[in-house]
Amino acid sequence: MEAHKKLTIGLFGFGVVGEGLYKILQQTPSLNASVKKVCIKNPHKKRDAPKELFTTDRNELLFDPEINVIVEVISESEAGFEIVSTALKNKKAVVSSSKKMIAEHFRELLKLQEETGESLLYEGSACASIPVIRNLEEYYDNDLLHSIRAIVNGSTNFILTKMFEERLDFQNALLLAQQLGFAESDPVLDIEGYDAVNKWSILLAHAYGIIEKPDNILFTGIQNIRLDDAMVAKEKNFDIKLVGQAKKLLNGKVAAYVLPQFVTHNGHLAFVKNEYNGVVIESNFADQQFFYGKGAGSFPTASAVLSDLSALRYQYRYEYKKLYHHGPHDLTDDFYMMVYVSFDDLKYIPKEKFEWIEEWHSGETRKYLVGCIHFQNLKDDKWWKTNNTSLILMPDPIIEDVELRKLKKKSLELAGIV
Amino acid sequence: MEAHKKLTIGLFGFGVVGEGLYKILQQTPSLNASVKKVCIKNPHKKRDAPKELFTTDRNELLFDPEINVIVEVISESEAGFEIVSTALKNKKAVVSSSKKMIAEHFRELLKLQEETGESLLYEGSACASIPVIRNLEEYYDNDLLHSIRAIVNGSTNFILTKMFEERLDFQNALLLAQQLGFAESDPVLDIEGYDAVNKWSILLAHAYGIIEKPDNILFTGIQNIRLDDAMVAKEKNFDIKLVGQAKKLLNGKVAAYVLPQFVTHNGHLAFVKNEYNGVVIESNFADQQFFYGKGAGSFPTASAVLSDLSALRYQYRYEYKKLYHHGPHDLTDDFYMMVYVSFDDLKYIPKEKFEWIEEWHSGETRKYLVGCIHFQNLKDDKWWKTNNTSLILMPDPIIEDVELRKLKKKSLELAGIV
Repeated sequence: MEAHKKLTIGLFGFGVVGEGLYKILQQTPSLNASVKKVCIKNPHKKRDAPKELFTTDRNELLFDPEINVIVEVISESEAGFEIVSTALKNKKAVVSSSKKMIAEHFRELLKLQEETGESLLYEGSACASIPVIRNLEEYYDNDLLHSIRAIVNGSTNFILTKMFEERLDFQNALLLAQQLGFAESDPVLDIEGYDAVNKWSILLAHAYGIIEKPDNILFTGIQNIRLDDAMVAKEKNFDIKLVGQAKKLLNGKVAAYVLPQFVTHNGHLAFVKNEYNGVVIESNFADQQFFYGKGAGSFPTASAVLSDLSALRYQYRYEYKKLYHHGPHDLTDDFYMMVYVSFDDLKYIPKEKFEWIEEWHSGETRKYLVGCIHFQNLKDDKWWKTNNTSLILMPDPIIEDVELRKLKKKSLELAGIV
Repeated sequence: MEAHKKLTIGLFGFGVVGEGLYKILQQTPSLNASVKKVCIKNPHKKRDAPKELFTTDRNELLFDPEINVIVEVISESEAGFEIVSTALKNKKAVVSSSKKMIAEHFRELLKLQEETGESLLYEGSACASIPVIRNLEEYYDNDLLHSIRAIVNGSTNFILTKMFEERLDFQNALLLAQQLGFAESDPVLDIEGYDAVNKWSILLAHAYGIIEKPDNILFTGIQNIRLDDAMVAKEKNFDIKLVGQAKKLLNGKVAAYVLPQFVTHNGHLAFVKNEYNGVVIESNFADQQFFYGKGAGSFPTASAVLSDLSALRYQYRYEYKKLYHHGPHDLTDDFYMMVYVSFDDLKYIPKEKFEWIEEWHSGETRKYLVGCIHFQNLKDDKWWKTNNTSLILMPDPIIEDVELRKLKKKSLELAGIV
């Protein structure tokens, strides 16, 4: 068997992931990789590693000719980008798990990889321990991807699970998540969907060759979901999940968003509970695939970083095949969706924007409707995010043949059947 | 982006998988791979491809210098081995999906790969569309694998699902599977576990570096499972699945077998229904992972072959890291198991071989017991396969600290608690 490149690592960040990685590397000498230096912000914090390992001077790592791999696991996105781009320019391979940094600088990072010929790997940036990026890149390379649906944020999934299983309201479920370490003390990034859409932007690149800034992808989190909505879901035999979805439409374009969604109780995504993540991929040949695992946390993320390090030993790099080789897909906003909207007062709901409304319900504490609306009407003006309104997609929400459906409804009405 | 090797393929076999692959390759020009010649056994069978593509002379493929990849998807194991070994010796890369051939000739195939330096890939040989071999090889390379549990045979899983969900008895469930094309007309290889243990032998190599002939792995199928057993399972809130399992014990050795098993109703393996396959991997860092997808059929298997072809373009080969780099693990038979045994007459049950029996049940149509037994007592003398006896493992069946458990039982008995 051939000999492998020895990896001498410069590590940026010694938080949960960085420290986890450091410990794992000590436990796995077989990898033939060692951390030479760790760059940190605060030199006074007590750390569980030899003092001489640490520095606050990033150039000690970035300009050390012996260091051939930079691992970047810090939380600041702009500093992260500077580190990663300097490292690539200095002919070092890079492993990162910073989803926000990658999502926001995707085009620049693509260009840098092309110019320098260096490898930038980031399996840990989406779904942590689930090898979804590598599998999308390698395994579905030549298979026609119909759709990808996923739960990519563990904190929100934990909260939704508790709202369902223990009927906790949102605030108490969030509190529990924080107590158990599944949500940050400032949970806005998770709760309002920012973290999920960053990951979704990365997965879109590897699933469909689509490079899109997170801002341009319609998303929200679970901040508006109420216990009443969970009760309605239960009645209908649904669960509520925060779902990232991308689907290739009949016209060849791709619909993509991250929104709360009803999922059928015995389906794949309903199986994903608590802090776990799950990805369902539908393709022409492989049919339906489901990947499930821990999507966050010190060791799961570190294990993804580790698998990237392992791949670097044989010079692995993403080829972005769907972008460069197959011609990328385009995102589209031109499709319709079946949505559930719950609200306090009908006056806040733009009824005229709906193609049709097929269910009305007026309960004591809460009212809701189910109807069909053009995606653009959700994207342009976020009426559904304000005034105590809550939007949840129906299962299998995308409607492409809206005129046909209308005709069918009409004829059923004329026949007096509905 | 770098240019890739063009693949000129010689295809052995034009059954469901071979023909599926041929069609897929026609639909995916991006792969830059074409079938130059197909070797078949029966030249008179009508086939949906140009006549000049076919030959019955294997040397036309094996000695064609233009052909750089041999794809072998025939069902005869010995002929398959001859083809694959001749191809490797002739400096051709090989993709195969013949689990039996690979499992039975593993050591010879390892040697041939080492000697020739050529790549032999076989993702399609286990769980078809689920990329389990590549992930075990690459992703869990440096992670400590605690255990792998899987449903690797779709026919038997379909039959068990129908016994559970529609209360069909074994024979009627089998008939339905055959009608729907999920079981062969001669179903013995599936039903009695031969297919599953071949796959298990392959997965053991990539999970733990263990090379073991299928004959040496304890296995059976579902031929002895009765509707009565399914009823007992339901009462206990279990499903019955045919499960391949390998677990690293505290002494560092590995326990492995393929046997029917009770699985908890809300667990991962219970989620796998009908003809699907599923794999649960537990590891130190990535924690619990679950992969799910179609494990058989024309297109799912062909898609796995395709992903191997795709990998060949950048000279990918299995490194068998656990075998060569990390030092392989050893299989052991020295552990205990909790088992359920149902029977018609107690006289066929070797009670003295059990460490203890903790449940007795004598129903009108069927009797059963639940007890602890040494694995060797299941392996030496297959009393549990005869006389209408049915053996099913309890959930989480492996017991390592049997003396401790005995002491605990004893003290509870002395205290009059049980």
